[in-house]
Amino acid sequence: MKLNIREFSSSSVDFRAELEALLAWDSVSDAGVQQAVTDIVTQVRQRGDDAVVEFTNRFDRRDVSAATELEISREQLAEAKLRVSDELVASLEAAAQRVHDYHERQKQPSWQYQEANGTVLGQKVTPLDRVGVYVPGGKAAYPSSVLMNVMPAKVAGVGEIIMVVPTPDGFVNDIVLAAAYIAGVDRVFTVGGAQAVAALAYGTETIPKVDKIVGPGNIYVATAKRMVFGAVGIDMIAGPSEILVVCDGKTDPDWIAMDLFSQAEHDEDAQSILISPDADYIQQVKQSMETLIESQSRKDIIKVSLEGRAALIHVADMEEAMDIANLVAAEHLELSVDEPEKWAEKIRHAGAIFMGRHTPEALGDYCAGPNHVLPTSGTARFSSPLGVYDFQKRSSLINCSPQGASELAKIASPLARGESLEAHAMSAEYRILKD
Amino acid sequence: MKLNIREFSSSSVDFRAELEALLAWDSVSDAGVQQAVTDIVTQVRQRGDDAVVEFTNRFDRRDVSAATELEISREQLAEAKLRVSDELVASLEAAAQRVHDYHERQKQPSWQYQEANGTVLGQKVTPLDRVGVYVPGGKAAYPSSVLMNVMPAKVAGVGEIIMVVPTPDGFVNDIVLAAAYIAGVDRVFTVGGAQAVAALAYGTETIPKVDKIVGPGNIYVATAKRMVFGAVGIDMIAGPSEILVVCDGKTDPDWIAMDLFSQAEHDEDAQSILISPDADYIQQVKQSMETLIESQSRKDIIKVSLEGRAALIHVADMEEAMDIANLVAAEHLELSVDEPEKWAEKIRHAGAIFMGRHTPEALGDYCAGPNHVLPTSGTARFSSPLGVYDFQKRSSLINCSPQGASELAKIASPLARGESLEAHAMSAEYRILKD
Repeated sequence: MKLNIREFSSSSVDFRAELEALLAWDSVSDAGVQQAVTDIVTQVRQRGDDAVVEFTNRFDRRDVSAATELEISREQLAEAKLRVSDELVASLEAAAQRVHDYHERQKQPSWQYQEANGTVLGQKVTPLDRVGVYVPGGKAAYPSSVLMNVMPAKVAGVGEIIMVVPTPDGFVNDIVLAAAYIAGVDRVFTVGGAQAVAALAYGTETIPKVDKIVGPGNIYVATAKRMVFGAVGIDMIAGPSEILVVCDGKTDPDWIAMDLFSQAEHDEDAQSILISPDADYIQQVKQSMETLIESQSRKDIIKVSLEGRAALIHVADMEEAMDIANLVAAEHLELSVDEPEKWAEKIRHAGAIFMGRHTPEALGDYCAGPNHVLPTSGTARFSSPLGVYDFQKRSSLINCSPQGASELAKIASPLARGESLEAHAMSAEYRILKD
Repeated sequence: MKLNIREFSSSSVDFRAELEALLAWDSVSDAGVQQAVTDIVTQVRQRGDDAVVEFTNRFDRRDVSAATELEISREQLAEAKLRVSDELVASLEAAAQRVHDYHERQKQPSWQYQEANGTVLGQKVTPLDRVGVYVPGGKAAYPSSVLMNVMPAKVAGVGEIIMVVPTPDGFVNDIVLAAAYIAGVDRVFTVGGAQAVAALAYGTETIPKVDKIVGPGNIYVATAKRMVFGAVGIDMIAGPSEILVVCDGKTDPDWIAMDLFSQAEHDEDAQSILISPDADYIQQVKQSMETLIESQSRKDIIKVSLEGRAALIHVADMEEAMDIANLVAAEHLELSVDEPEKWAEKIRHAGAIFMGRHTPEALGDYCAGPNHVLPTSGTARFSSPLGVYDFQKRSSLINCSPQGASELAKIASPLARGESLEAHAMSAEYRILKD
């Protein structure tokens, strides 16, 4: 199948402008979505369970009479797991264990130190009390996302994890429930959309209020998360998924073609970019794509994604490839090259770096260990993969000795007076020791 | 001066409702502010310098003809420092050093580990390239905030720090500029409001685009930050400042009265709460407040704040005081008690914990070392003080050996097929080694 994929050369005078246009992504929720979400959030906040039941019946075409019917018990999760194949359960368990082990290394301990005069300073690290995990229903129901969102919270020591997942027309995905069971979710409610986000943010009679909401969702979910931010914490609002593959031209072209497909098959807006200093190799990969796409079950999505948002970029050398990779700040960066360690050192911005020809993104998506929830749309310039640190928070500790307080007060007092904050100054000065 | 301050008893049947009403704070920007900010951000994004100059001249009553006139050079910062008293400069330098030393302990190193089959997993930690620090002008111009926002970025290794500060009517605060010099700010622009936030978020011909914007501001600044979130990172949107003092009744009541004032003097919305198991002591503190307020230079603000938002809460015992402190999740928690270490262990939620009778909040505000930018309005349940971690981000590292990839692919493949993502499965399966 012929594929019309953009081809750029970094030597073109327009290259920087072309690259910027390629990467541009503005996720705006239109006024209609804003208004609908505002209404749903307000109703749930005011009417609690009644509103949750009403919206769930309306949007998910269900026939629920009380909010308590929305809960799925741990026993039901265990039953769902029994309905899943042994091979899949084994894979889920192996993946959960690996994700757990990697995230264990992200745990941050509390610390403190004492100064010569006896003053103690420190930082106390504590887990969040209760977290909500949003899991999409329907066609984009991914058990791997359950593991990736829940495991870091478990490792952090979060007291209670509440999962919400819509079940349109009552359809329940057993693999998702099995993943929830394996990951150790405490309670599950079959609610979705803005109503689920509002219920978690403000609490209802049945659904407990949480401290933070994580997990992907559609534009209604994303808009609701942005709206409740402040009342509760939220994770990043994700844009479409993207991969940037840098290849030196020595990886089997079929492998690279399939790595690019694995991103493109997510949805029509997903972005797959290949960068190589080898122009002939780029054509080989293109040829592989045109051949391999024929047999892909999701070829329609792959075609739209590749023709709409993909690019094949020829660069002068690997140094330039690294410069472009830092400009893109990709969610997934695959360095399919010799000596990937050497090149990874030059990368300042990327969600995850997949190093070497044997590390396709798909392994990281499921089971390598690191999280698959990653900063998209260039936000790797300032944000990080979802991690244990997202489910811990810090409190500063200050314990002044009388001598220490006296010394600090002599520094604080002129600063407070310089800011015309006299009570600050006096509060400090009370602690100055008399000679 | 008689003060009408709320007095609660935890034994009252209405106590929980009273406490919730006391703590309630909804920061909403009205439609007028939203519209004004949307317009400013759009104009700056489209017209760059021209719009920045136009808005600055209009809102700050200035007469600037080119954006380059808005920059204050490092030489001018050094000159400003010469105009500040030696005592103040020494205090700024001592505070900066202490803040630097504390934050050094927050630096997070990169790490990696190798599995038995040769696969390497890790996390690479890098500083942000460029950060914008918003510093309010006019009456709330705090040099201590310059230190507290800039030092963690410096310690993190941020490449370039851009400060923006409005200078209404051209008034420049020398102490603020001196603090910027001492903290090591790279470039300063005298721009404020939503136009400064937009310029930092999208860049103009003169003001460089940054990766993250931190620092406090008025409702226009806060609304603009919320609007550009996603294009750049932002810190928390701060609500009014608050202190919760827990005292066992054995601290000099004047000290506690002044500690409560030091919060109340910030602004009319600031909140000061005292909790004690000693009813007589609460009355002594109240008496101290009524006496001490007379001589306070900011007594008008203090009175409005105390009568509008303060509370004196009598509890049964210290255990109950700790339960309430965890419910409040205060920005500043002062444990003015014997054995503060013992009680601090019971605290799960607080921005900063000031331990013992010799640790008033004011010492932490200026120079103890920990940051004074702290989560407000109960957000300490899920967020942390500003820190080095806000200026570092992480990239996951995955480097599979051929053997490791082969093993992982066998786990990933069924999971991918369980999610109907065939290209993911095939991308993984290509890496399975032939026997």
